[in-house]
Amino acid sequence: MPYRATILTLYPDMFPGHLGHSLAGKALERGDWSLETVQIRDFATDRHRTVDDTPAGGGAGMVLKPDVLARAIDSVATDWRPRLLMSPRGRPLTQERVRQLAEGEGVVIVCGRFEGVDQRVIDARALEEVSIGDYILSGGEPAALTLLDAVVRILPGVMGNAASGTHESFETGLLEHPHYTRPQEFEGQGIPAVLTSGNHAAIERWRHEQALALTKERRPDLLAKPSQPVTK
Amino acid sequence: MPYRATILTLYPDMFPGHLGHSLAGKALERGDWSLETVQIRDFATDRHRTVDDTPAGGGAGMVLKPDVLARAIDSVATDWRPRLLMSPRGRPLTQERVRQLAEGEGVVIVCGRFEGVDQRVIDARALEEVSIGDYILSGGEPAALTLLDAVVRILPGVMGNAASGTHESFETGLLEHPHYTRPQEFEGQGIPAVLTSGNHAAIERWRHEQALALTKERRPDLLAKPSQPVTK
Repeated sequence: MPYRATILTLYPDMFPGHLGHSLAGKALERGDWSLETVQIRDFATDRHRTVDDTPAGGGAGMVLKPDVLARAIDSVATDWRPRLLMSPRGRPLTQERVRQLAEGEGVVIVCGRFEGVDQRVIDARALEEVSIGDYILSGGEPAALTLLDAVVRILPGVMGNAASGTHESFETGLLEHPHYTRPQEFEGQGIPAVLTSGNHAAIERWRHEQALALTKERRPDLLAKPSQPVTK
Repeated sequence: MPYRATILTLYPDMFPGHLGHSLAGKALERGDWSLETVQIRDFATDRHRTVDDTPAGGGAGMVLKPDVLARAIDSVATDWRPRLLMSPRGRPLTQERVRQLAEGEGVVIVCGRFEGVDQRVIDARALEEVSIGDYILSGGEPAALTLLDAVVRILPGVMGNAASGTHESFETGLLEHPHYTRPQEFEGQGIPAVLTSGNHAAIERWRHEQALALTKERRPDLLAKPSQPVTK
């Protein structure tokens, strides 16, 4: 069975978006994965097809109604796929979680809009709140597309030789070392001599030192994490 | 002058993607912001239009050539807009950086692909490496679209009354409190009584307590940051 992604959204036209291009798009055409959208509004029952209402207790913005969203979820979430809700309140997405998701059969993703989603439907349908970063988006759709890009990229057969997935950032617990390629000289700057030395041990050592120095400078938080190995 | 976004990419067809829909799309049509793509491949000079080459020192993947990318950047970056390179090696994007970007005249964004970008062009063109999160994407394009969504959303006139931008996650240094709306009862669960009490001080207190408890549970790292206020 190909990997199956189901998106609950008020903006189905946003999909497949960038996932319709390049490697993810070709894999979608080949049927290596599938993408289905569900219009949440189709599950409204009043004649204005209302999906949101004012927040209990007052305040700005509108809240996605629990009854409408529950019906939308129940229409598709009939299997054991994880049910995610893209939300800045969620646990931060990590490459480890991306790998877990890619190893499953697929995913159901609810895209929030407005001020938020009624807490009762999050609880009643056991939605896992996931955040892609500490910034505010217009809705869950850009986040869902980003998460799916990360997942689809590592599905079997999708990536081919376009990327290796081995020495990449976060796989080693460090940011990646700098890269160089031809030309040998660019605007008066050469390639570091060690890289053209042919000494593979020295190259590996240099790359590791560079990665460690960059991580110390930009992301000391990664080095402080006990769960992440800091050496290869 | 409307906000001007220029994207350097090997996949210009990925744009505007989801930014062509909803509020960002309407704002784009109205001319509240503009989006221009530059095909990096147009700046290759050989007859195969080569943009990448093998990494110096060996290893998997391909590296974006510094000379080709430098010409592409020089063709557009003739002003004072920030020049970003979307990369997992970058500093993590924050809502504070999103606000700074939105207050400027626009942005130039380089989308990396392959294993990476030659370090010399990053240095020579002073590219600011920005990461949208600790996971690996197929390229910089999904990251650029995500960053632009966050920026465009807060440009003057774009958001209207669809969201308030005041009590949102990260603006207070805390994750957002839970939301509730009608119906009063959903699958046997009511709305917390305090929210329908009409006691605004009690409602504010309850929301703050809930936000604090959620942040402690899911994101203790946010509370540990001295630069972030933990109270409203």
